[in-house]
Amino acid sequence: MIVVIRPNTPRPQIDEVIAEVQKLGYDPRPIFGTEQTVIAAIGDERTHHTLTSLTALPQVEKVIPVQKRHKLVSRESHSGDTTVDVDGLKVGANAPFCLMAGPCSVESEEQLISTARAVKAAGATILRGGAFKPRTSPYEFQGLGSEGLRLLSLAKKETGLKIITEVLSERHVDEVASHTDILQIGARNSQNFQLLIECAKTGKPILLKRGLSQKIEEWLLGAEYLLAHGNNKVMFCERGIRTFETYTRNTLDLAAVAIAKKESHLPVIVDPSQGCGRADLVRMLCKGSVAMGADGLLIEVHPHPAEALSDGQQQVDFVGFQQLVKDLQPLLGAMGRA
Amino acid sequence: MIVVIRPNTPRPQIDEVIAEVQKLGYDPRPIFGTEQTVIAAIGDERTHHTLTSLTALPQVEKVIPVQKRHKLVSRESHSGDTTVDVDGLKVGANAPFCLMAGPCSVESEEQLISTARAVKAAGATILRGGAFKPRTSPYEFQGLGSEGLRLLSLAKKETGLKIITEVLSERHVDEVASHTDILQIGARNSQNFQLLIECAKTGKPILLKRGLSQKIEEWLLGAEYLLAHGNNKVMFCERGIRTFETYTRNTLDLAAVAIAKKESHLPVIVDPSQGCGRADLVRMLCKGSVAMGADGLLIEVHPHPAEALSDGQQQVDFVGFQQLVKDLQPLLGAMGRA
Amino acid sequence: MIVVIRPNTPRPQIDEVIAEVQKLGYDPRPIFGTEQTVIAAIGDERTHHTLTSLTALPQVEKVIPVQKRHKLVSRESHSGDTTVDVDGLKVGANAPFCLMAGPCSVESEEQLISTARAVKAAGATILRGGAFKPRTSPYEFQGLGSEGLRLLSLAKKETGLKIITEVLSERHVDEVASHTDILQIGARNSQNFQLLIECAKTGKPILLKRGLSQKIEEWLLGAEYLLAHGNNKVMFCERGIRTFETYTRNTLDLAAVAIAKKESHLPVIVDPSQGCGRADLVRMLCKGSVAMGADGLLIEVHPHPAEALSDGQQQVDFVGFQQLVKDLQPLLGAMGRA
Amino acid sequence: MIVVIRPNTPRPQIDEVIAEVQKLGYDPRPIFGTEQTVIAAIGDERTHHTLTSLTALPQVEKVIPVQKRHKLVSRESHSGDTTVDVDGLKVGANAPFCLMAGPCSVESEEQLISTARAVKAAGATILRGGAFKPRTSPYEFQGLGSEGLRLLSLAKKETGLKIITEVLSERHVDEVASHTDILQIGARNSQNFQLLIECAKTGKPILLKRGLSQKIEEWLLGAEYLLAHGNNKVMFCERGIRTFETYTRNTLDLAAVAIAKKESHLPVIVDPSQGCGRADLVRMLCKGSVAMGADGLLIEVHPHPAEALSDGQQQVDFVGFQQLVKDLQPLLGAMGRA
Repeated sequence: MIVVIRPNTPRPQIDEVIAEVQKLGYDPRPIFGTEQTVIAAIGDERTHHTLTSLTALPQVEKVIPVQKRHKLVSRESHSGDTTVDVDGLKVGANAPFCLMAGPCSVESEEQLISTARAVKAAGATILRGGAFKPRTSPYEFQGLGSEGLRLLSLAKKETGLKIITEVLSERHVDEVASHTDILQIGARNSQNFQLLIECAKTGKPILLKRGLSQKIEEWLLGAEYLLAHGNNKVMFCERGIRTFETYTRNTLDLAAVAIAKKESHLPVIVDPSQGCGRADLVRMLCKGSVAMGADGLLIEVHPHPAEALSDGQQQVDFVGFQQLVKDLQPLLGAMGRA
Repeated sequence: MIVVIRPNTPRPQIDEVIAEVQKLGYDPRPIFGTEQTVIAAIGDERTHHTLTSLTALPQVEKVIPVQKRHKLVSRESHSGDTTVDVDGLKVGANAPFCLMAGPCSVESEEQLISTARAVKAAGATILRGGAFKPRTSPYEFQGLGSEGLRLLSLAKKETGLKIITEVLSERHVDEVASHTDILQIGARNSQNFQLLIECAKTGKPILLKRGLSQKIEEWLLGAEYLLAHGNNKVMFCERGIRTFETYTRNTLDLAAVAIAKKESHLPVIVDPSQGCGRADLVRMLCKGSVAMGADGLLIEVHPHPAEALSDGQQQVDFVGFQQLVKDLQPLLGAMGRA
Repeated sequence: MIVVIRPNTPRPQIDEVIAEVQKLGYDPRPIFGTEQTVIAAIGDERTHHTLTSLTALPQVEKVIPVQKRHKLVSRESHSGDTTVDVDGLKVGANAPFCLMAGPCSVESEEQLISTARAVKAAGATILRGGAFKPRTSPYEFQGLGSEGLRLLSLAKKETGLKIITEVLSERHVDEVASHTDILQIGARNSQNFQLLIECAKTGKPILLKRGLSQKIEEWLLGAEYLLAHGNNKVMFCERGIRTFETYTRNTLDLAAVAIAKKESHLPVIVDPSQGCGRADLVRMLCKGSVAMGADGLLIEVHPHPAEALSDGQQQVDFVGFQQLVKDLQPLLGAMGRA
Repeated sequence: MIVVIRPNTPRPQIDEVIAEVQKLGYDPRPIFGTEQTVIAAIGDERTHHTLTSLTALPQVEKVIPVQKRHKLVSRESHSGDTTVDVDGLKVGANAPFCLMAGPCSVESEEQLISTARAVKAAGATILRGGAFKPRTSPYEFQGLGSEGLRLLSLAKKETGLKIITEVLSERHVDEVASHTDILQIGARNSQNFQLLIECAKTGKPILLKRGLSQKIEEWLLGAEYLLAHGNNKVMFCERGIRTFETYTRNTLDLAAVAIAKKESHLPVIVDPSQGCGRADLVRMLCKGSVAMGADGLLIEVHPHPAEALSDGQQQVDFVGFQQLVKDLQPLLGAMGRA
């Protein structure tokens, strides 16, 4: 930590801060500059007191952390690339590029099974589908719940696709975990730490979406919760952040893909459907994601998007998905991905 | 809903959209303009299919909702101002201005009881204190948990202050509810709908913080979940939104106070401590909040902010709090508040 | 400056950075911590090379500035409160609260003179009105230009009100300056440094609006340009920042009022009309602004807002303005302002 | 335009709005729904009064535009892809991919000429370099000015590269235009409409950067100013927007590349250096830009980034640039670009 003292602070008040730094467990090293004094506080910032509280003192201008706050997810802890095993299917930098696709919500057996078959035929290996849906309004379709989970299991049996579905509630964790291969933690729950801990305990692979206004550092720390609770089968998922732009639903932060891969050893997936909220842009964003080094994509596909019970505007139909996968091939080749 | 058709769309494709609107349960009324056609879709947008999925059709440019999505929280449902009864204490537009104050985290019996006495002496009627703390990093102090709840009950017994504390987990709802008078739903859980529903069911007063990047409409809909699940003892709490500005921790959106009071009948509280993250600004923001029509304040107070286990930088000390309350009196008078 | 070295960097590469710091004119003081090394670079950050370029070196993790970048606008340079003399009228913390009001755009002699009379009767001392208008689309009304300036001079002659109007172009600076008492620099030009310098040279009072996405530090540095070019008759104007929220046109950052007054000695004005873009909220935001310590307000007033040629949605009519001024009186009293 | 009337508005007040719509030049078509009335206002929104002022009426809830506001830049006006001729070099969708590279600031003859030779050898065809620099602080290096322009002309003579440089001031337009092949309008001046008009008049190709917080629609309308003033040699340049994220300097909005190409017929360039502010990410963002369909890149290159007089942290060195260009080849091939 670096503690910056306000200009023109008399020496006794500086000494007060030095004493406080020591009291809170750090080794204080003051550096007296021409105009301002700073105190370097030596010690492990992750295990000691958060010195930022010192800004409550009038003579302290600011306190600046030096160390990175994430540890287990960092490249310093684990320099290689982690491959996540999803019921036998490998996901990560050293595995084939991974296509996860399926409807936003599970709506019916026919809708789900037909979509599962279509996405499998086009090259997907994991089927997505929401059984429990977090909806902005209580009057919107909330998902089929347990019946949706049953249909996902059925789709797995019929097609052999692995399953990913979102878990919204600590109380559902066990039930959802028994029907899915990957537990998806959605953007709204990205800092629902109790849910994160419960999911970690299942030992299942987890896909952690970035929150709507989550800084990359906070996203890494969300994954740190999962690893710190014993689960390292973690995949990041960039799905767009909230900005002032209204043309798209969210602003897909493709730089975050490269950053997450640089700062951590975990796989990174991109969800372009949520990322823009417009079916007509999904194809282009898939290309950008591949070029930025993503390890996979999570794409919403629906038999009849215009009649979907949720987010039809961002779902592509079967033909669109087939075309999209075909269009990606040259880029995957150029990136050296299978 | 208004469905906007792209310019130069041939009539048969317009008819296709008209048919789809009808199929999804609305009465379609096309208006053929000079350059563009729009279709007004007559029907209750809150109970029918979300027509926004129609933008999946290539000839549809956009779909624009007309109705407000919130209902029970709106002034149309309930024109008067709701007063929330907090174990006999009234909060709302027709009640005295309400001061909630106390430490960010409950740290020890001595810390809590001394703070409770100090804030009571200065005029607060509700004691805040976090027992379960949502922290960005798993290595930060996570709160005393159940022991923190016990101390809050003790503080109530000792001082008579009502209690507000945050609930982070559906599994803790009952335990927390048995030790507190108000359940606080924090910014990170503002769209944790399962938690909202569990809290609603307790019948206890609820303080719903605005999410870090939550639009006002979404915040109103969060409260709509609570009312729709049978609990109308709801208070909004503006606590700042996340923007590009870094001088303050968050940007306190004081216009949102006036808007929440205009759009809904529920009380609105402001948390200036989280709102700026700097003790030196809290006093000023309290004044601004009163002038914007807030019904109360939630302020972090600590015996020794520089040594606090969480968020010391934004906590005021006892003398600071006393002064702050004194400074507010003329403004409360000018606003006609007791 | 603090230069943070990446963990596990070998000593020779650290020495390389130390040498570079010295070469760029600073006195380097390395501090070797348990995990990481930091180098405190002693020297005046405002006159030396910007060390941030050092992050181009692979072993440098980040470079953190210590000093504030603004100087002449800071309280350290000038501890008292600056009063700006506007053709004999005083504006600032030690002067009466200042009401600036008038139409968004000057549209006609009748519109302007009737508005001037109405706002004067209600208590305004400065008349606003746009002659040159920056409009998002080239097809929108661009203002009356020179004819608008002539009408502003006429209004001053008729009513005795001082005049404020926006200057958009370096080429117009002299012409505008000869018809106005305050040069307004709009949000879109807040970092048009050439325009700032030209305006500074006129010696006229300047109102500097905050840019749509301008950090407070950048806003202070904008004013620093004006003072560094010899003009200290500068007033800040908070007018809302751009965020994700769409209920209001901008998010009025009222904390910025208190911060600008704390960090600088210059007066701070608030423009609530641009700040929210909704006439129905302007009155409330005026109250909040007064309570936050603003030295004046800039309010859009129009005889018939619904027919205004620009921004009718945020203009109040004569009766509304009169009521608004009346409503402010108790708050101004509570804040100890005349 | 769609004018939405508040629920429960009595008929006479609806008629008032209908009359006002007519008075402002539109043909009003009311649609009476179950709960709310809307009035479709038929007429060209680009040439008529902006009806948004109607929200000043208490019975009007909101006014929603239907038409797109840009016209000359739209695909409806010009369905093919525009190729811009830069002194004989073609830029656009039907031309070879265009590499623009060079130092952030022109610092000296040696620095510029050596960089020009290096970037040419690596494949660039256009040399960038700032002579007039917009700097946040008045104490930072402001560029060499006219001397910088002279050096750019010299570099062109020596290497045959075309030149792009920023113009900051209306007063410099002619001087800059006589030394450059492309006039660059920077992010801070993206809505400096007087500068846009002056640049348009030169007839020179113009690169229009997106503003820090500019919506895509506003960016398109900025270009509309250029086309409406007779210059269609316009290239868009996405360079990142300002968000809450602090890991990167800006958030590069790669979806905006695809959107600008979909909505307009003009070429789109990406500036990844400003887009992230970190040399280590530039290479990855170049790949993402190519995959999103960009027509060219604008990259900062410096002989010794750590000692650069401006923005060293985001400049790559000669070896880095060479490698970057080499890495792009497979992707350009996959995208079918030369």
